[in-house]
Amino acid sequence: MIINDISLKITESMGAWKDKDSKRPKIEVTSTLKRGNANESRLHIDAHTGTHVDAPFHFLQDGKKIDAVALNRFLGECIVVDLTKIKNPGIEKKDLVKAKIREKDIVLLKTLNEYKKTFDFNFVYLAESGAKFLASKKVNAVGINALGIERDQPEHDTHKILLGNGIPIIEGLELSKIKQGRYFFIGLPLKIKNDASPIRAVLARF
Amino acid sequence: MIINDISLKITESMGAWKDKDSKRPKIEVTSTLKRGNANESRLHIDAHTGTHVDAPFHFLQDGKKIDAVALNRFLGECIVVDLTKIKNPGIEKKDLVKAKIREKDIVLLKTLNEYKKTFDFNFVYLAESGAKFLASKKVNAVGINALGIERDQPEHDTHKILLGNGIPIIEGLELSKIKQGRYFFIGLPLKIKNDASPIRAVLARF
Repeated sequence: MIINDISLKITESMGAWKDKDSKRPKIEVTSTLKRGNANESRLHIDAHTGTHVDAPFHFLQDGKKIDAVALNRFLGECIVVDLTKIKNPGIEKKDLVKAKIREKDIVLLKTLNEYKKTFDFNFVYLAESGAKFLASKKVNAVGINALGIERDQPEHDTHKILLGNGIPIIEGLELSKIKQGRYFFIGLPLKIKNDASPIRAVLARF
Repeated sequence: MIINDISLKITESMGAWKDKDSKRPKIEVTSTLKRGNANESRLHIDAHTGTHVDAPFHFLQDGKKIDAVALNRFLGECIVVDLTKIKNPGIEKKDLVKAKIREKDIVLLKTLNEYKKTFDFNFVYLAESGAKFLASKKVNAVGINALGIERDQPEHDTHKILLGNGIPIIEGLELSKIKQGRYFFIGLPLKIKNDASPIRAVLARF
């Protein structure tokens, strides 16, 4: 089994949405081997930190929280679609129609975005027509290598189209070393009644 | 694929180590659809909350932190050993020798412990001879359905034997519905330089 780690490292100085310091993680040491009997810590982290999944409730008041989303949305057949040639900010339906996407796939969009410590306000995102196309394909989940899947769309169309169709969104993936193709995706959310959860995500090949 | 969820639910009122309130999670709502433009939250959680993995650094100052432990320790062939007939507090080598444990297995100990909101100070744990036996079998990881794998052992022998052999420990599993047998375990830690990480753990059968 080959395991490709596609997760961002969680650190106190990591990139955060729009560079807001309030959204960065804090790791609080609560015990050490010298001052206690073990090294222990408490994590203070936004649910949308680094590599994470959004539940429908993130943008839909009646939407499912992350603990209620079926686990096969986060565990299964996956296709990585290489879109690194697209320099337009929005990925449209026309950019996706040729990809060999199957029903129930977890679709990961590999864009020009690269992970940086400072937030890239001009990141490549999934446009409304692209989101509608993926929803029509009945995919299990959609992911992207950016901290967000849309950018300053006033009505949050992309989130609402996907989440409204029960399709969770995976954000903050690190795909720079991953080639286009099919994999087995693993990226399970914590079991928590919440709008989102950080995850450890990998692409496996058996 | 059948997916058996073996994780505890993370809530503000969940069971905590020795019932210490300081160790319980807090979910802080940071934005709502009415007061912001999305439902968002920040998690304040001990690294050892609910279902979690311990890194060698938890008890060994020079031990690896959880981000440095190879991911195949948390993803692979697994055996669940039914020890629910054992009423002695400590699981010894003699209780494990008949189990069909293979090298590189992730070994999950299903004991009499049941998850309760109040901490069970008399939980069944893994005794020193049991830990030494599992280390000699060169297993990939050891898990148990209790919030700890040992209990008031002054020198923390069980932790030190396993972690000292590079074997991470999985605590807080929920195994009441799982039968003895072989499965594929998935329970990846967050990518964080830390003594432990909460995980979502499942047993899959393909």
